[in-house]
Amino acid sequence: MSELSRIGVAIDSDLLDKFDRLIAERGYTNRSEAFRDLIRDELVEKAWASPNKQVVGTVTLVYDHHVRLLSEKLTELQHTHFRCILSTMHLHLSHDYCLEVLVVKGKASSVKKIAGALISAKGVKHGRLTITTMGEDL
Amino acid sequence: MSELSRIGVAIDSDLLDKFDRLIAERGYTNRSEAFRDLIRDELVEKAWASPNKQVVGTVTLVYDHHVRLLSEKLTELQHTHFRCILSTMHLHLSHDYCLEVLVVKGKASSVKKIAGALISAKGVKHGRLTITTMGEDL
Amino acid sequence: MSELSRIGVAIDSDLLDKFDRLIAERGYTNRSEAFRDLIRDELVEKAWASPNKQVVGTVTLVYDHHVRLLSEKLTELQHTHFRCILSTMHLHLSHDYCLEVLVVKGKASSVKKIAGALISAKGVKHGRLTITTMGEDL
Amino acid sequence: MSELSRIGVAIDSDLLDKFDRLIAERGYTNRSEAFRDLIRDELVEKAWASPNKQVVGTVTLVYDHHVRLLSEKLTELQHTHFRCILSTMHLHLSHDYCLEVLVVKGKASSVKKIAGALISAKGVKHGRLTITTMGEDL
Repeated sequence: MSELSRIGVAIDSDLLDKFDRLIAERGYTNRSEAFRDLIRDELVEKAWASPNKQVVGTVTLVYDHHVRLLSEKLTELQHTHFRCILSTMHLHLSHDYCLEVLVVKGKASSVKKIAGALISAKGVKHGRLTITTMGEDL
Repeated sequence: MSELSRIGVAIDSDLLDKFDRLIAERGYTNRSEAFRDLIRDELVEKAWASPNKQVVGTVTLVYDHHVRLLSEKLTELQHTHFRCILSTMHLHLSHDYCLEVLVVKGKASSVKKIAGALISAKGVKHGRLTITTMGEDL
Repeated sequence: MSELSRIGVAIDSDLLDKFDRLIAERGYTNRSEAFRDLIRDELVEKAWASPNKQVVGTVTLVYDHHVRLLSEKLTELQHTHFRCILSTMHLHLSHDYCLEVLVVKGKASSVKKIAGALISAKGVKHGRLTITTMGEDL
Repeated sequence: MSELSRIGVAIDSDLLDKFDRLIAERGYTNRSEAFRDLIRDELVEKAWASPNKQVVGTVTLVYDHHVRLLSEKLTELQHTHFRCILSTMHLHLSHDYCLEVLVVKGKASSVKKIAGALISAKGVKHGRLTITTMGEDL
């Protein structure tokens, strides 16, 4: 962890008031933390735009476990990419529906491809790839 | 315009370096301006989430002027809402295609509705509503 | 599950070619499934725009477990909202960093508030709320 | 313009009902047009992800014309890139604020760079790049 800098930011008082209200609504008690989070979120977006960058993300899937061979297909897909899929969690949302979250690590382009293969599987009602970071570089 | 405040923000040196590089790529020469722009963009998003808030936006449309009755329909729609449509600009992109930009002002819900009516017209190849601000409140 | 309809969609051959290539890149082998996924994703977005709608989402957090009292704070927050937090998964990303995924269920406004409280905690390097669905209504 | 295809899409009746309600809210009277618009919007996004692709976009700027030398700077910037900037429209939003919309054409990377230079100028309160298409390839 690098040393801490303290920088000055010039800002209209009115704008600062509005910002303080906005971040309070979002749960922040510390203005510097809110600034840093805005910055880090931009940097995560940027990292994911580079296909070869090493990243980590989560894939959220909601599917009907009654769909014939779907669970088998999802398991098969995951084993094909087992080196990238660090862990998974499975919830029984209801009689019919499952929610599965996978943590996937690898090159941005590979993680997107794995996410695509899972989300596009027939019977998956909804899926999303969430991009995040290994932490080290932020 | 309100008076200027100068606030201190604590930030890791490494993160600050990365932020400085990011904003330089985006054309910023002034770090405070980049911070203020991040804040203002969040506030614009928030304003548009309130249906009754007074806002201004632009609607960008690309369409084929050969499509029968399309120009008439778009003109008709615009006149129905003439009080909200401040101005328009029209470009001949090519032999077939036109690009039209409209500046629309009103309640967020109304501006969205007008944008929807224009973008959904048959023959409009692509349309987008861009949200912005009257400036005063930022 | 409702019965299946078969609808006709008129589309230029060129546009269809481009769509087929796009969905193949994303892993689809079935065009109807790609159409249905586009629709369902729009419906999920719409549901989340209604504060009182019952939804489910995942919160992804990356944080440094060395930050003093952070783990305690995150645990405390989760217990305050234990009725909404269905399950969590925790990974040790590296010597310093943890990735935690929580599945949160409740009114859209509550889920957003819980996510905000977690993501805004000091020491959380990056956090995102991913919106999804209970499945039933899609 | 290519010939029209008519494809069949299999879809649950319930999901179809929800889709029909959604697109009606957005102003569509024709289901095929709504499908085509979903597709075209995805293709526009894809085109803009290729730095060398020829694209067209609009830049919306809101600024205070009292800021010293800002108008001069924006004009200067536009003349530097005059070959890419097809046209502009200027509105006096209020006593203090101007809204300017520019139509910019060129390689995706160049259009983004020009937009960045304009949006990052000190005194520009809010700016957005809206991506669209020449029409021909959709």
